[in-house]
Amino acid sequence: MEFHYPNGRKYENLSAAKQKTPDTTAATNYSNRGMTLEEDLNETNRYYLTSGIAVIHKKPTPVQIVHVDYAKRSTAVIKEAYFRQASTTDYNGVCEGKYIDFEAKETKSKTSFPLKNFHSHQIEHMHHVVKQNGIAFVIIRFSTTEEIFLLESKFLFAYWDRMISGGRKSISKKEIVAHGHKIKLGYRPRIDYLKIIREIYAF
Amino acid sequence: MEFHYPNGRKYENLSAAKQKTPDTTAATNYSNRGMTLEEDLNETNRYYLTSGIAVIHKKPTPVQIVHVDYAKRSTAVIKEAYFRQASTTDYNGVCEGKYIDFEAKETKSKTSFPLKNFHSHQIEHMHHVVKQNGIAFVIIRFSTTEEIFLLESKFLFAYWDRMISGGRKSISKKEIVAHGHKIKLGYRPRIDYLKIIREIYAF
Repeated sequence: MEFHYPNGRKYENLSAAKQKTPDTTAATNYSNRGMTLEEDLNETNRYYLTSGIAVIHKKPTPVQIVHVDYAKRSTAVIKEAYFRQASTTDYNGVCEGKYIDFEAKETKSKTSFPLKNFHSHQIEHMHHVVKQNGIAFVIIRFSTTEEIFLLESKFLFAYWDRMISGGRKSISKKEIVAHGHKIKLGYRPRIDYLKIIREIYAF
Repeated sequence: MEFHYPNGRKYENLSAAKQKTPDTTAATNYSNRGMTLEEDLNETNRYYLTSGIAVIHKKPTPVQIVHVDYAKRSTAVIKEAYFRQASTTDYNGVCEGKYIDFEAKETKSKTSFPLKNFHSHQIEHMHHVVKQNGIAFVIIRFSTTEEIFLLESKFLFAYWDRMISGGRKSISKKEIVAHGHKIKLGYRPRIDYLKIIREIYAF
């Protein structure tokens, strides 16, 4: 489908637009949560793309469009829309024939990662991906300590099931340190998660 | 990221919303182009998912959000946003470890498929996918004759290059019939494109 859109405007403006939003709880969450991590990952994926290492993109934010103003034929303006819950993970793509699928989350907690950061259908999606021999994982950032970890889906599934069966509603930092792979923030790429994935899956 | 969104509303409403838009050129293109095809493909992908055949999703429509109203804490309302051009194809996912990536387009023409239906960066994206050993193709629907074809990316690339080098700006129906694979509309799944892909790539 071909959409009319304003020239010169770039997706990067979106983060700026977000930060300009009024400082209500929603706005704060929205502008703070995952922003740095998202930008670092987009930068990393751009590096992977330009270096011919992988083709991985972040999916657009799912939006339910209710009213579009076509008054100006040059530019269709969306006048009413709502954020929708994502039914899949945010990032997917391909690296040397391997299907890559992951979610990236940040937490301000120093001691644990709250599982409420995930929706059940995102976990379901990762289960489906693994059943199709895709590679699914999560990148977790502890924003206070600036630590980034890659956690394979099999561990996420285990901790999710523990919660479902009445256990704790989070993954302890200890557990993430024990089962996850720490990613040092680099220059190019900033977050070299594929290095770890290629070690794990030997490709 | 977790967004507040109105309960009960479904993504399916989007198409309804689209059709309700005023009948300007933009609106007509928007509501007519790819709608039936998109719904049939979503239905097909749902079938693939529930049958454990593949995990393939349509990416959300890329929207550049300019203003969000957080007045009601329960619901963040997007008050100003614009359609952005997609930098990738619309559909991707995984089938038995194989990365699947495709675009779906409709044309009212009976004799040819206009290449202006594609953006150069979508073609670039498919080139990147193929370089990473992913499977890229396009599903073309001739809406007047209700015919659907799957065309492998290598042919799309050839016709695109022909246009770049001063040749015709479309793929003739003859060429699509000759090099494409016709897909009969079925019941479940409606558009069984994976059957063709699995024959071509033998998996």
